Amino acid sequence: MNTQTYMVIGMTCSHCVNSVRGEVGAVPGVNDVNVDITTGQVTVTSDQPISDEQVREAVEEAGYSLAS
Amino acid sequence: MNTQTYMVIGMTCSHCVNSVRGEVGAVPGVNDVNVDITTGQVTVTSDQPISDEQVREAVEEAGYSLAS
Repeated sequence: MNTQTYMVIGMTCSHCVNSVRGEVGAVPGVNDVNVDITTGQVTVTSDQPISDEQVREAVEEAGYSLAS
Repeated sequence: MNTQTYMVIGMTCSHCVNSVRGEVGAVPGVNDVNVDITTGQVTVTSDQPISDEQVREAVEEAGYSLAS
């Protein structure tokens, strides 16, 4: 089990959370996505490590961006 | 042509706007719904007047509330 944490900027409501969760959750290999809207923290769980670039693309696809 | 204006509380992003627009736009007789996210002002256009209660129910169905 592998867990990676990211900070996502711009999520303001539960629709935003669902959008990010949906896009990041669709990245191949991702088992679970947990989003804390109050902090912007997104935790990605997978069997094998996911590339940051894939996560970044998924977040941007949802219409948001990574903090770094 | 009839135009009614409401104040909706809680919309924070474009997903919220789309949600309110979708629900209010589905009220029978509504021709157009315009949402100003910065003010929360929702303008409903219809041929015949729509009851405030129908608009309130649609807004609440979307997950928001009227200011009054």
